Amino acid sequence: MSPMRKTRRSGGSARQHPGPAKERAPARAAERPERARKEAAGRPPGALPRGAYWIYGRHAVLAALANPKRRILKMVTSGDSDPELAAALTKRDLPRAERLARDQLSQLLPPGAVHQGLALACKPLNQPDLESFLRHLDRPRVTLIVLDQITDPQNVGAILRSAAAFGAAALLTTLDRAPEESGSLAKAASGALEVVPYLRETNLARALDRLKQADFWCLGLDEEGRTLKDAPRAERLALVMGAEGDGLRRLTKEHCDALLRLPTQPPIGTLNVSNAAAVALYELAAREEGS
Amino acid sequence: MSPMRKTRRSGGSARQHPGPAKERAPARAAERPERARKEAAGRPPGALPRGAYWIYGRHAVLAALANPKRRILKMVTSGDSDPELAAALTKRDLPRAERLARDQLSQLLPPGAVHQGLALACKPLNQPDLESFLRHLDRPRVTLIVLDQITDPQNVGAILRSAAAFGAAALLTTLDRAPEESGSLAKAASGALEVVPYLRETNLARALDRLKQADFWCLGLDEEGRTLKDAPRAERLALVMGAEGDGLRRLTKEHCDALLRLPTQPPIGTLNVSNAAAVALYELAAREEGS
Repeated sequence: MSPMRKTRRSGGSARQHPGPAKERAPARAAERPERARKEAAGRPPGALPRGAYWIYGRHAVLAALANPKRRILKMVTSGDSDPELAAALTKRDLPRAERLARDQLSQLLPPGAVHQGLALACKPLNQPDLESFLRHLDRPRVTLIVLDQITDPQNVGAILRSAAAFGAAALLTTLDRAPEESGSLAKAASGALEVVPYLRETNLARALDRLKQADFWCLGLDEEGRTLKDAPRAERLALVMGAEGDGLRRLTKEHCDALLRLPTQPPIGTLNVSNAAAVALYELAAREEGS
Repeated sequence: MSPMRKTRRSGGSARQHPGPAKERAPARAAERPERARKEAAGRPPGALPRGAYWIYGRHAVLAALANPKRRILKMVTSGDSDPELAAALTKRDLPRAERLARDQLSQLLPPGAVHQGLALACKPLNQPDLESFLRHLDRPRVTLIVLDQITDPQNVGAILRSAAAFGAAALLTTLDRAPEESGSLAKAASGALEVVPYLRETNLARALDRLKQADFWCLGLDEEGRTLKDAPRAERLALVMGAEGDGLRRLTKEHCDALLRLPTQPPIGTLNVSNAAAVALYELAAREEGS
């Protein structure tokens, strides 16, 4: 077993970690707390301005509070006093949290939402576009996750979480057939939505071409191909995954440099898509450490 | 890095794969199709006999049909004719499937259930108890998953699926604070509920002692301990996992032979529990292949 080691000419400049794409969305939360508050004022609880949504659950809320780029409209709590929360709040210019009974808080949120007594009304992040992300890459070794038509916010959230845990630099998906930022996605991401850029491009095949131009090796996870451990080695990797059942679309597959499969066995032979992503990210990260 | 290789005296007899625990549940589906049908007759659609539940979704339904131990009461479809389904049905002594409109079928199932036009009313499997399972172990190399207070059926279902995909022999958990067999668990397991025994014992600490007696090394997944790659090597492994947030309970931890951690990084640093299980099962299976 002698995995290939491939290289492409080096590219990309060495600047800071990607920030929001300024050309697309100049207004930023930290700079305009007053505006955010005025937008939230005078509405019944639960009614949020257009595009805003509730982030709930302890990890998701604490991570949103710790993210200076997250524009928060208001906060609602129903729990006891919480030192970690109080400390996080001292760093934010936020109005005092609104206290509600537990079931009143539940009524603001989707049915069954596990909120742990904490919710934030907030605006979606200003995510960078792919160009902006690539322009600001500052590390030689980068792994990206690319999702092709994975629509379930809980799966995408869990994949963001694994991406953070195994050091992937971003999650790239499509504008259509991919979930918007939402409370359910943020909850499953358990804070990772605040730290892993969530990029969405119109045309995935074109985005893969752009990645290849920027020296990424695009590795499609599929039921055929070589096994994960024998993946080509490169400093820049994009791990491309399709939806369960349908898998990678033909065009997406054609834009991959190599196809890889997980060493699973019959009769089940496949994993939940977020589990497959976790395993692949683990293997690629472990391999880097060992190399 | 020289992982320890440990041995305990060999034990366990060499008989067939564990079947249902006959001492606990003598009636079996394949032997009594008539009784099953009579039980299902004369009820409004959706109303099922005590203990019965709906399995829905293509993979879960096809796997249940392929499992001779699965006692099926009736079948409902709303889709077009399906050759794979027709082939599966020829092997079962079942009444003709009831045809319903898609939304009528949805009304039989939990809200939002993704049924793909297929549902089976069925009885829970007669699962073996731990003693019976151990008595029938017929392989030298066995990996088990042990879950401590993981209550979400979708997580447990996804873990069953990964267990099947990476060749684990069973999932052991507790009678309390663990999900019953259900449609949601079966859907997440994507057929694995039919092939991976789902064992439930009253007292987990006692079950771990019993496993150790039977030459299993009990490895607890935790935030402390050595990394996964340095896990002790043994032919019989039990991978013990706790709930997210709380992790392993003190008593459970004390009954483990070693603690292992996943090589995750801050600030998120943890995975969804089913993703953590997938990664650990992958690593243990990959290591066996390489050894």
